[in-house]
Amino acid sequence: MENKVCIVGAGLVGSLLANYMAKRSIQVDMFERRPDMRRTDIPAGRSINLAMSDRGWRALEVVGAEETIRELAIPMHGRLMHDVEGNTHFMPYGKEGQYINSVSRGELNMRLLSLAEKTGKVNTYFDERCTNVDLDNGTLTFTNENTGVETTNTYDRIFGADGAFSAIRNAMMRRDRFNYSQYYITSGYKELTMPPVPEKKWAIDNGALHIWPRKDFMLIALPNLDGSFTCTLFMPFDGEEGFDNLKTHDQVQAFFEKYFPDALQHMPTLLEDWDSNATSPLMTVSCNPWNHKGKFLLMGDAAHAVVPFYGQGMIAGFEGVRILNEMLDKYENWDVAFEEYSKYRQPDGDGIRQLALDNYREMRDLVADEHFIRKRQLSGKIHEIFGENWMPLYTMVTFSHVRYSEAYAKGQWQNKVLNELVATGLSKDSSEAEIKAAVMPYLKVTN
Amino acid sequence: MENKVCIVGAGLVGSLLANYMAKRSIQVDMFERRPDMRRTDIPAGRSINLAMSDRGWRALEVVGAEETIRELAIPMHGRLMHDVEGNTHFMPYGKEGQYINSVSRGELNMRLLSLAEKTGKVNTYFDERCTNVDLDNGTLTFTNENTGVETTNTYDRIFGADGAFSAIRNAMMRRDRFNYSQYYITSGYKELTMPPVPEKKWAIDNGALHIWPRKDFMLIALPNLDGSFTCTLFMPFDGEEGFDNLKTHDQVQAFFEKYFPDALQHMPTLLEDWDSNATSPLMTVSCNPWNHKGKFLLMGDAAHAVVPFYGQGMIAGFEGVRILNEMLDKYENWDVAFEEYSKYRQPDGDGIRQLALDNYREMRDLVADEHFIRKRQLSGKIHEIFGENWMPLYTMVTFSHVRYSEAYAKGQWQNKVLNELVATGLSKDSSEAEIKAAVMPYLKVTN
Repeated sequence: MENKVCIVGAGLVGSLLANYMAKRSIQVDMFERRPDMRRTDIPAGRSINLAMSDRGWRALEVVGAEETIRELAIPMHGRLMHDVEGNTHFMPYGKEGQYINSVSRGELNMRLLSLAEKTGKVNTYFDERCTNVDLDNGTLTFTNENTGVETTNTYDRIFGADGAFSAIRNAMMRRDRFNYSQYYITSGYKELTMPPVPEKKWAIDNGALHIWPRKDFMLIALPNLDGSFTCTLFMPFDGEEGFDNLKTHDQVQAFFEKYFPDALQHMPTLLEDWDSNATSPLMTVSCNPWNHKGKFLLMGDAAHAVVPFYGQGMIAGFEGVRILNEMLDKYENWDVAFEEYSKYRQPDGDGIRQLALDNYREMRDLVADEHFIRKRQLSGKIHEIFGENWMPLYTMVTFSHVRYSEAYAKGQWQNKVLNELVATGLSKDSSEAEIKAAVMPYLKVTN
Repeated sequence: MENKVCIVGAGLVGSLLANYMAKRSIQVDMFERRPDMRRTDIPAGRSINLAMSDRGWRALEVVGAEETIRELAIPMHGRLMHDVEGNTHFMPYGKEGQYINSVSRGELNMRLLSLAEKTGKVNTYFDERCTNVDLDNGTLTFTNENTGVETTNTYDRIFGADGAFSAIRNAMMRRDRFNYSQYYITSGYKELTMPPVPEKKWAIDNGALHIWPRKDFMLIALPNLDGSFTCTLFMPFDGEEGFDNLKTHDQVQAFFEKYFPDALQHMPTLLEDWDSNATSPLMTVSCNPWNHKGKFLLMGDAAHAVVPFYGQGMIAGFEGVRILNEMLDKYENWDVAFEEYSKYRQPDGDGIRQLALDNYREMRDLVADEHFIRKRQLSGKIHEIFGENWMPLYTMVTFSHVRYSEAYAKGQWQNKVLNELVATGLSKDSSEAEIKAAVMPYLKVTN
């Protein structure tokens, strides 16, 4: 091999990348700070899930990993909103047959790891913390978390797939002209559980992503294969309805009784969960350049950590791996491929970061707003009529492969157009001819 | 003393802060990574100067340091623009009697240090690099740069006045919910010299700040007491007219002949200076909160590093020290004062950061633009008529104590108003009655 390659971080993106490298017949050393999750007792929070959608599947497909991951997936066809009275309202994600999937984060990671190891090309080292980075020479030192033993190796190419608090990025940050921003939103989150009802059945509909939108905060729930739901409360830290103000069991109980009564009846372990699960902050990261001299390349959250509200955090990382792979095909010179990837992908990292920030407001507030619902329904109708010439924003992000940066820009434009159309009285119930006539001038397409 | 106080960094802001603490009868340990500049050979670049103006003087005055620093000051009454043909055009900074001052950075720092030590309250330690920060306990470790000896002390209050690459801030950055951004503009800078002509006379007018505006890049020159000028070339790294494209002596010489012929004739050491002086990047830093639990407080560049184009980098730090001092007077509880200072001053850090970024374009490009000059002259005229009800942006920033955040917002608004007024044909030559009538509706003041 001309390239001695290292992947720092064996999380979701690192593990997928290892599969891609193996497929290129490249030998890889992969180091992970945490223990091997396949060999440790699974701690609370094991059931944490994510929403898998089209961009993710496509990236898995290239290395033949799609089928095994499909086994873990529970289809969610839309959002099921719960109001305080317990009424529900279903909002499909897309057209018939378009859905996202609840997948266990841990299971997904373990399967990708095992697939990578099975290729015989990938050596994985766990409990190894990256403690020194020599950017000029590509020399990395790892310190074993249990034994304290240090290992130092030099590589030709190093992928920093070591997450939002990346050690590789920290080293790059001290170099001139590295732009970096970390930003915490005012909300945090806490995970809670809705256990299975008898015979491993789901307590509520397992075919949807559940949302309890409450304007400044929200509860959501995604189904797990064992019949449970993982619920997440997103809420500001400060203020009357804020984490810092919910201190006693009585306060927590009263808060859930007031805002989430229909969820509460299925959450018998609420108070234990509340005490045992941490309240965590939500950070976004933006930086550039991701490439350092063709030797180091930041991937996934290390390059573009986002808030979780579009369900695209990991998926953006997966898509990045696929695109990098295409660049490695296109440019035989890896120096060039790293540089081109870094430049090309940067705006898309920024795009999905912004989309995810915006979607928090949509989920906790707008989904219960009449004007928003009307625009959303009209947008779906326009899509039916105009097809690919008008894709609703959610569809572009979730069910297409349009660049995030482009989706973001188009989404901004569509929102303006929809405001104007709705102001003229247009709705999903208008006739096709009416909708066509109104939308055509914006699209500048001929009939 | 109830408070055991440490200042990390004995630069301009740290040294001024030490004087303020001494005036409050507080004993201070002050640690500086670099050698004591009063006891070392002064390296090339010693003559680097800065522009001192009203906010700076006011902060010096409080601790009785104004008089000694005035001795170092060379008044600059306006910008003197040089075009490529060597024609010059003078643009005053304000009204008669309003000027800024070229002051040697090194001399200023040394005098503030000596003043602080003379109080008997301040212990200074040089060559001491801050190598560990315990945020919870306020314990700092310094490693001597020459001997390697480590010193560890615990303090009640620690000021991080350790500059744009602050070690204190780096420690805070690893904590949850610390927002941070570092951003490099696409230009860098290189310092050059215009030596004195015989008998220590200045080669060009020493009563102005000289600018050679060339749209995408510029040369500036500030006078020094020894008859020299410190020249600074600000220019993009990339592109045809960029630092990365000026590699040989021939290229540098040709570049100066083409763009700065009238400066070049006074720069006999250009090529030596070019080789011996580094080309440096220009970074801005924004972060919050600056206060960590009433124990740590970021000051000066550590909290708000800006690009140098408004001549307000150090001055913003000085003003911050004065404001903090007022907060310590107002709130006896230092925990409260730190928190209130951090909240109050944050928008002003952002304001001066933005103003400084905007002023680069003004200096290198707009000062040679007719529309801009017309607006600027009209703005000055409106100021003459309306006094404090209309202060030109430069006046607000440089000759007033209006908050930077307010100056920035007002400047944005004024620019819009001036565009509208100029579009109607109004100019500095319009009659007072005309100007009054046109401006009055905007100011909503009665005659």
